[in-house]
Amino acid sequence: MGNDERIPVAILGATGSVGQRFVQLLARHPWFRPAELIASERSAGRRYREATDWRLDATMPEDAAELVIRDYNATLESPVVFSALPAEVAAEIEQRLARDGHAVLSNTRTHRMEPDIPLLIPEVNAGHIGVIESQRRGRGWSGFIATNPNCSTIHMVLALKPLQVAFGLEAVAVTTMQAVSGAGYPGVPSLDMIDNVVPYIGDEEAKMESETKKLLGDFDLATGQFQAADLIVSAQCNRVAVRDGHTECVAVRLTKRPDPEAVIAALEEFRGRPQELELPSAPPQPVIVRREANRPQPALDRDVANGMASVVGRVRACPLLGIKFVVLGHNTIRGAAGASILNAELFRVENLLPL
Amino acid sequence: MGNDERIPVAILGATGSVGQRFVQLLARHPWFRPAELIASERSAGRRYREATDWRLDATMPEDAAELVIRDYNATLESPVVFSALPAEVAAEIEQRLARDGHAVLSNTRTHRMEPDIPLLIPEVNAGHIGVIESQRRGRGWSGFIATNPNCSTIHMVLALKPLQVAFGLEAVAVTTMQAVSGAGYPGVPSLDMIDNVVPYIGDEEAKMESETKKLLGDFDLATGQFQAADLIVSAQCNRVAVRDGHTECVAVRLTKRPDPEAVIAALEEFRGRPQELELPSAPPQPVIVRREANRPQPALDRDVANGMASVVGRVRACPLLGIKFVVLGHNTIRGAAGASILNAELFRVENLLPL
Amino acid sequence: MGNDERIPVAILGATGSVGQRFVQLLARHPWFRPAELIASERSAGRRYREATDWRLDATMPEDAAELVIRDYNATLESPVVFSALPAEVAAEIEQRLARDGHAVLSNTRTHRMEPDIPLLIPEVNAGHIGVIESQRRGRGWSGFIATNPNCSTIHMVLALKPLQVAFGLEAVAVTTMQAVSGAGYPGVPSLDMIDNVVPYIGDEEAKMESETKKLLGDFDLATGQFQAADLIVSAQCNRVAVRDGHTECVAVRLTKRPDPEAVIAALEEFRGRPQELELPSAPPQPVIVRREANRPQPALDRDVANGMASVVGRVRACPLLGIKFVVLGHNTIRGAAGASILNAELFRVENLLPL
Amino acid sequence: MGNDERIPVAILGATGSVGQRFVQLLARHPWFRPAELIASERSAGRRYREATDWRLDATMPEDAAELVIRDYNATLESPVVFSALPAEVAAEIEQRLARDGHAVLSNTRTHRMEPDIPLLIPEVNAGHIGVIESQRRGRGWSGFIATNPNCSTIHMVLALKPLQVAFGLEAVAVTTMQAVSGAGYPGVPSLDMIDNVVPYIGDEEAKMESETKKLLGDFDLATGQFQAADLIVSAQCNRVAVRDGHTECVAVRLTKRPDPEAVIAALEEFRGRPQELELPSAPPQPVIVRREANRPQPALDRDVANGMASVVGRVRACPLLGIKFVVLGHNTIRGAAGASILNAELFRVENLLPL
Repeated sequence: MGNDERIPVAILGATGSVGQRFVQLLARHPWFRPAELIASERSAGRRYREATDWRLDATMPEDAAELVIRDYNATLESPVVFSALPAEVAAEIEQRLARDGHAVLSNTRTHRMEPDIPLLIPEVNAGHIGVIESQRRGRGWSGFIATNPNCSTIHMVLALKPLQVAFGLEAVAVTTMQAVSGAGYPGVPSLDMIDNVVPYIGDEEAKMESETKKLLGDFDLATGQFQAADLIVSAQCNRVAVRDGHTECVAVRLTKRPDPEAVIAALEEFRGRPQELELPSAPPQPVIVRREANRPQPALDRDVANGMASVVGRVRACPLLGIKFVVLGHNTIRGAAGASILNAELFRVENLLPL
Repeated sequence: MGNDERIPVAILGATGSVGQRFVQLLARHPWFRPAELIASERSAGRRYREATDWRLDATMPEDAAELVIRDYNATLESPVVFSALPAEVAAEIEQRLARDGHAVLSNTRTHRMEPDIPLLIPEVNAGHIGVIESQRRGRGWSGFIATNPNCSTIHMVLALKPLQVAFGLEAVAVTTMQAVSGAGYPGVPSLDMIDNVVPYIGDEEAKMESETKKLLGDFDLATGQFQAADLIVSAQCNRVAVRDGHTECVAVRLTKRPDPEAVIAALEEFRGRPQELELPSAPPQPVIVRREANRPQPALDRDVANGMASVVGRVRACPLLGIKFVVLGHNTIRGAAGASILNAELFRVENLLPL
Repeated sequence: MGNDERIPVAILGATGSVGQRFVQLLARHPWFRPAELIASERSAGRRYREATDWRLDATMPEDAAELVIRDYNATLESPVVFSALPAEVAAEIEQRLARDGHAVLSNTRTHRMEPDIPLLIPEVNAGHIGVIESQRRGRGWSGFIATNPNCSTIHMVLALKPLQVAFGLEAVAVTTMQAVSGAGYPGVPSLDMIDNVVPYIGDEEAKMESETKKLLGDFDLATGQFQAADLIVSAQCNRVAVRDGHTECVAVRLTKRPDPEAVIAALEEFRGRPQELELPSAPPQPVIVRREANRPQPALDRDVANGMASVVGRVRACPLLGIKFVVLGHNTIRGAAGASILNAELFRVENLLPL
Repeated sequence: MGNDERIPVAILGATGSVGQRFVQLLARHPWFRPAELIASERSAGRRYREATDWRLDATMPEDAAELVIRDYNATLESPVVFSALPAEVAAEIEQRLARDGHAVLSNTRTHRMEPDIPLLIPEVNAGHIGVIESQRRGRGWSGFIATNPNCSTIHMVLALKPLQVAFGLEAVAVTTMQAVSGAGYPGVPSLDMIDNVVPYIGDEEAKMESETKKLLGDFDLATGQFQAADLIVSAQCNRVAVRDGHTECVAVRLTKRPDPEAVIAALEEFRGRPQELELPSAPPQPVIVRREANRPQPALDRDVANGMASVVGRVRACPLLGIKFVVLGHNTIRGAAGASILNAELFRVENLLPL
């Protein structure tokens, strides 16, 4: 690809499971190409092919396979950096790169709740990118950091946003059944998953509760402040024996009291900035509604729209909160690497990438 | 066992998966012994050993193995009859046996919501047996029918009862992750369970919502009427890749606003009639509370107290309803066969068996 | 697709799990298009979309979705017929269609071992199509029947063929770990698969033993007779908790005593008629060899080459037979529907289709 | 248990998964009581209850729960020591304890193949304990080390021994499907087991091949030497999604050519020293034969005889080697902790314990 005119990008944490998704999804991306792969000391100096225990069912892309991995201290040339760093090391590295002029699109939780860093789902709160300017100014950075939400938050919020807009959203109760790929590799021991459920995922419930309010809140361009949504969220998170795809049982209290058909209509009509802008990774329809009694199911629905859509089913009346439904989505595509990539596409169209 | 003085009992639907549990649990029961095994035409005339595809990990009890199965039309001699009949055939058979003087303890859903038939959890609503007299009188039966709840209802209600008593119970939201043994054998196809969740179990949500209100309601001895509890219940039911043990994420709104420690204390102190009467199948403590962050888990906790207790964990504040927790229990022991047997033990101590 | 010039084909048993694979794989086939869908009385008269419990993770193809299903007695117009019929009904229907001039490419076991019907893997025994002429003459048919092997046989034989050619093949011992999709839907109960192995699949061992000898045997054009390979085959077949992809541990005694590297070379160099003819469904390389210690694995390797290749790993010395290895392949693609389609492609290029 | 007269024993590696089995199985043992629990520095100084992530479905025994764990350097008072140490640290510790007068019954692989250390299955080669005397003399130890085989070897060899005796054993081919508990905790990642098979377990095949020959070989009391059995063994080892219970497909070439019924008779009649001596942990029958087509299965058969027996099924003719069958057994009970305990029982009856 000598005359490949795509924007070179770096991937931080490239050997891990989200890092592998970045490599896979970017291999054929029309705008970006993986040019620099960064991982810990242990992998640095080796070709990606040799250093990586590739765990995806798709074959490792040939171009990336030949790249030599560098360590966390490397000076990067790529203007755009995708981060799948472990949270323990992300803060320092991501901030250094942003300071030095890189656009850092991070899937790591570290900066998500910072008051001057956007937590973005382009369909939901594209306007939040307005904070970038004050972020740069305030921190004295020539680049910036933008984040995407946790894998279980993102699919729920894609379904909540149109309901918030159409009917007003007051309260959300969610119980998740999450796939093991969300914990990386080696991640969850098989003795915890064969013939079992683990009704606990560290910090996950708190993340879903706080991130949802930031995502569905407002950004005031005048004050440069986020205002969290006035909303009650209660989450219960479980790990189940599924490879990919989080299934979430959601109940909502809406200000107007729509019936299930009105809710379905709002979900199906929902479009956001990525659809308007026809971003390359945008699903044609962010939320797909299935009407069969027993859908969505991870084995059957997680790959719809290349794993970039959320699939809703079982929309019905809830005797307690008003409406309940099930939402499912791919946790390492739209729930992680794909989310960061869609963010980068939005930034590019908005001319915010440091090119 | 020539001089076995235990009460002979019949088991209806003895070859199915709940029927097998009845056979297993009754084999060493101090008060009852399996004397008559009833199944469909297909199995009738064969020894239990030959007719049954025994699916439990415990060995088939020798005594039962030699019994010759009879069909649904058989005239029974046992005063006590346990029913694990398919719902389609249960109504006619159970009613005929009750009319003819048998005590029918049924795990089948057919009669659960009838206004003159008790739906019983002895720890929860032992007083509901008061309806038996008017049932007999009203229907002209010399025997009677008593039922136990659905396998997912029973464990939740065991945890709800002490909260209702101590704090007042106004609303319940529950999301279940249910084991496949609840659907019998062959039951759920493996293509639905490997790497998958099925977010739907036919009629299960309606059963949980209605049965809970009957169980937690009052029986007025004067009027001979049940009064359903004034309570909102919303259930979302899922099937997951677990053999035995239903896991349920519950959130409750309580009239008094107890903190989690007060809730734990109420759960741990809870005792009911079976504990008071020291019934042979009664768990010493109906609800066991675990304090580890990641318990209860079906693989580790379903067999506690021989599968007759409910195990609660993760009792914590819920920003929406006040308190949330996880409850787990064995679905074919306390959730089915063991429930009917405990009911029979209660009836015996109350001198209501037709001996 | 008004001016779709592809050859119309019929699919028998279109609603079942192999039938669905035919529909999916043929939707974008360059030569064939699904024109007639046939299923049992129960589905006949309804659109495919309504009649089918679609179980693949890919979306149902739009064109097929609108077709109205007809029953087994329908008169077909398509010259080419793919059969995924249940074995009980296949004999009569497939023979009638062959008699009436259709090319019947069958995945059903019924006719596989008939002395005038070819059991085909185009890479392995393309010459066996020579029997078609005597089949037609002998049976007085204007069409014909050709079959493909059992899903576990085909992948093993793809790996055995190059070894037979290069080194002489005397004996084979194989132990399989087979996916549940091989049993269709509903198929294997989840209680048999969660935390379990079933060391038995009805008739499977006999099929592997007999089919392998026919496939690796000769067809004598002069006498019009098949000669089974002079070979000992012993199979042990197990069902494991895998959705798709059969894993098989194979040991072979070869006449020449090659070392593992020579075996690997023979496997990697292997090409057959489909590769020579560049048939549209042919994998570039029928057998792919992995050198990692722990491959192939169904979750990672079953979809390689669109599920049309066999993946071999762990080629090593066997102290008993000489060489042992593991072979894995997709059981409903190359192991079933894809096998029939590749056969049809071969027949077309050989000008044997009744067009 | 102030006047508990049972022999105090120490358990090395008490917090791991095999260590937990030792604690569980010894809690109610009639001859031994857990008196000293040893683990790594990390756990030392804490009560067993606090230091252990208890992973068995049975409850932690109360007595052991209160013991304070000591580290690997502790001086032990118990005459009998059970070892579930990691192989990396076992050599030095086990040898020191044997030198200092302890009877070390080890489940660790470290010393299994040493020429002066017995590798024991009491039903199979009880006579091998004759080496103890020369072991002590040669090494200048006042105690000794005895080992039990690998979890997959032991069940196969229990089934091979009676065949060797009755018919002469020349060759064995085995393919295993092993449970994840064999790899300890955390052990195998769930991403490797959900919808997957891993056709590789490090060193396992070599262990099965070498240990089998030592176990089935002779010990010559005169020369004090082991003579490995003159036997070809070829193993292929796989990990499957099962919690407990290894399933093994075995084919054997026997000198006499018995038919399957003769093989079944030999297996069912097999008894060894533990049965003769009525050792407390001895299963009444070491090998149980099931005649159903689809047994043994781990979920149904692993706990038979308290997990101390091997269950054989599908005994049938093998076109290649003569006889083939399936054997299954519990890998952490008879395959590990239970094996060491049975060894200790044998030593006690033979008056070889340093009491």
